[in-house]
Amino acid sequence: MTDVAERLAALEQRLGQLEDERAVARLVAAYGPLVDTGNADGVAALWETDGVYDVDELLMTGHGEIAAMVRSAAHQRWIAGGCAHVVGPPHVTVAGDDAAAVCYSLMVVNEDGGFVLRRATANLWRLRRSASSGWRVTNRTNRVLDGREEAPALLASGLGAVRHD
Amino acid sequence: MTDVAERLAALEQRLGQLEDERAVARLVAAYGPLVDTGNADGVAALWETDGVYDVDELLMTGHGEIAAMVRSAAHQRWIAGGCAHVVGPPHVTVAGDDAAAVCYSLMVVNEDGGFVLRRATANLWRLRRSASSGWRVTNRTNRVLDGREEAPALLASGLGAVRHD
Amino acid sequence: MTDVAERLAALEQRLGQLEDERAVARLVAAYGPLVDTGNADGVAALWETDGVYDVDELLMTGHGEIAAMVRSAAHQRWIAGGCAHVVGPPHVTVAGDDAAAVCYSLMVVNEDGGFVLRRATANLWRLRRSASSGWRVTNRTNRVLDGREEAPALLASGLGAVRHD
Repeated sequence: MTDVAERLAALEQRLGQLEDERAVARLVAAYGPLVDTGNADGVAALWETDGVYDVDELLMTGHGEIAAMVRSAAHQRWIAGGCAHVVGPPHVTVAGDDAAAVCYSLMVVNEDGGFVLRRATANLWRLRRSASSGWRVTNRTNRVLDGREEAPALLASGLGAVRHD
Repeated sequence: MTDVAERLAALEQRLGQLEDERAVARLVAAYGPLVDTGNADGVAALWETDGVYDVDELLMTGHGEIAAMVRSAAHQRWIAGGCAHVVGPPHVTVAGDDAAAVCYSLMVVNEDGGFVLRRATANLWRLRRSASSGWRVTNRTNRVLDGREEAPALLASGLGAVRHD
Repeated sequence: MTDVAERLAALEQRLGQLEDERAVARLVAAYGPLVDTGNADGVAALWETDGVYDVDELLMTGHGEIAAMVRSAAHQRWIAGGCAHVVGPPHVTVAGDDAAAVCYSLMVVNEDGGFVLRRATANLWRLRRSASSGWRVTNRTNRVLDGREEAPALLASGLGAVRHD
């Protein structure tokens, strides 16, 4: 039975790793559809209660401030005019109850009867798993890729010393 | 043996869930390369025989109508000029033999020596699994994100009451 | 025990398939963040020592030539000005120790205070697994989707006779 027990344990560990990466990627994939439909509570619930969403021009801390951004007149105007927050695919790294995801986001808006690529942004998501609520974002930092050094630095820190195996 | 049997059954169930989500994501990822190479039968085969592809300006029902769109002079002109249908990454939800995938698609075309983002579109894919042919699309609905209310409504209905765990 | 042994072996085989596809997709997702941060050795290390990176205007063979492209003045200017290589999501096919991934890449650059979609490109990645270093790229071929016939031909060859199951 030893062999069977070891193989079962190995399978459970390996499968858990894939499930964790899938959960992180799925959360990241939910952001765009939630924010582009104005689902303020749904967007906020991707974060921990006191999670941080740090974008170039705005630092949001906690569900209240994140939801307020979604409900703001500025964001509602994007939705009304036509808007796509295309996020990912993410490069995900899970280590125990912590995870990081690095990706790009493209903000596409409809203007004057055509589509404009308004912004390309470096994203670093940091997440934590809790027993009660599963994977949630502790910090998402975005920096626009307009030549500022912070943006590539953010991508680099997210990949870290990751091995591609 | 009870413990072993239970652990095996749990592993099989969890692995099956990942395999189903992978199959759906892989099908969605095939659409762009198939349609941009003019593979009319390959595109149609992503759908069930009587599946529906509902885009803003065109409602296609069944393999014949979907393949005819790919073979149309209009679509062939996009391919000849240079065209990329960039689809996803999808947010996938599987429940038994049914699945939904929500994502964006970007249509990029080459015009006058440069690339133009012609369209950003909300996508909702509904799929079903059959014993004979695996996962196939029953309905894919696309609505352009130009401010029409149907487009964010489509994204919202696709996410539904999905839990991010 | 026969039944248990068979179920364990089946689980190990199925899980290995998902792990392989995940490894390939994760490698592809690393390219953009590595190249946009100027990590020349990190980019090169995605390839086998004598791997090939074949783009329209440039054929690179081996780590030295790939790293040199990243360190070139032309590439460093893209980074300094603001640049996003958005790659994927890939359609991955694994067969034993060989794999193929088909996807699009979008090169977005910051120019004159705005973002420009400079290029949309068809990508075919071929990879091989070795015991010592895991999955590595043997050949990545990119063709810009500007109407040249090679670009859709590349997408088609990557999908091959792939079944969507």
